[in-house]
Amino acid sequence: MIEPSQTEKGELIVLSGPSGVGKSTVIAQLLKIRKDIHFSVSFTTRAPRPGEVDGVNYNFVSKEEFERMIAADELLEYAQYVGNYYGTSMKVIRDHLDHGVDVLLDIEVQGAGKVRAKCPEAVSIFVIPPSLEELSRRLHGRNTDSEDVILRRLERAREECRGCGDYDYIVVNDTVEHAADELRSILISRHCRTNKRIHLAEDIIG
Amino acid sequence: MIEPSQTEKGELIVLSGPSGVGKSTVIAQLLKIRKDIHFSVSFTTRAPRPGEVDGVNYNFVSKEEFERMIAADELLEYAQYVGNYYGTSMKVIRDHLDHGVDVLLDIEVQGAGKVRAKCPEAVSIFVIPPSLEELSRRLHGRNTDSEDVILRRLERAREECRGCGDYDYIVVNDTVEHAADELRSILISRHCRTNKRIHLAEDIIG
Repeated sequence: MIEPSQTEKGELIVLSGPSGVGKSTVIAQLLKIRKDIHFSVSFTTRAPRPGEVDGVNYNFVSKEEFERMIAADELLEYAQYVGNYYGTSMKVIRDHLDHGVDVLLDIEVQGAGKVRAKCPEAVSIFVIPPSLEELSRRLHGRNTDSEDVILRRLERAREECRGCGDYDYIVVNDTVEHAADELRSILISRHCRTNKRIHLAEDIIG
Repeated sequence: MIEPSQTEKGELIVLSGPSGVGKSTVIAQLLKIRKDIHFSVSFTTRAPRPGEVDGVNYNFVSKEEFERMIAADELLEYAQYVGNYYGTSMKVIRDHLDHGVDVLLDIEVQGAGKVRAKCPEAVSIFVIPPSLEELSRRLHGRNTDSEDVILRRLERAREECRGCGDYDYIVVNDTVEHAADELRSILISRHCRTNKRIHLAEDIIG
């Protein structure tokens, strides 16, 4: 097996998609089949949803703590969404990449744009639902939001999908297994790129 | 499952690698797990090796027939290697690509360069052995060539590896399963590229 060596840098994978598309489930499935990936847990000031665990789904922090991190320049990017802050710690990511570990960022569209601008070598992937109707079904099935909120999310989802042309890849979440397999394939293919492997051929050429 | 539609063109995959690297075995494994790929069978004037089947490993033709195909401009590329012709039929490939079927070409370095020049949208993959020592072991294990021929092949292998920087991807054949999985992943990732999928997002944006 060719594994990322200590000297070969990891890949930074930026994953976005509209609210309700099922990114978290797809990521959970990917991390199950690829335990060597570091999933970057975002920081947020929003309240945990039922079942969400601090340090697993998000690092839940107060508004005051988040604003301290902004002031201390500890964040790769941050954004506000529906009145809450969401952000990504720069240091944790750099440490993993430098040790050859792939890092997966689950990040909304605004933040993804900022990461792409700061890290042009990052690979960006946009997850879309099979259709708008299916997304509506999934948002209703979640039973956590009012009809009003769902309609706003659907409208926002359509808007967010407008940005997908800026991403390198589009993955359709028709089934969790299929979408996770596509993510896994994209990751593997990134490590097979010639610029990542040319040193192995040079060893043969001598 | 998102399958290539009738209107979405297939991907042309150009696979090269030094003699003895085990490309045929890797391809057989890939075709076992991806039965929807069309493997383009090359035409050659060389004699079949033990176990090779006409129309499966190669289309074995006479020198006269091959030279007729050259004259009739029926070939995407052709080359001479150790006194024999090797070539690829253009028409068969175009038909499959137009019907959304991925086509895999197993082709030596000279021919691959010609295909890349004629079809810049093709994805090119170079298979390398884990090391030159391992390649030597494999060539000896095949028991079909004299020591002299093996030494010439090894020297040629090193030379051929010099061209791998022109390919899009490098796959290391350490184990057949691993190499085939990498090929499969590269193929899947090509279909996830944004320009291949943007129409699906446009359906959602409306």
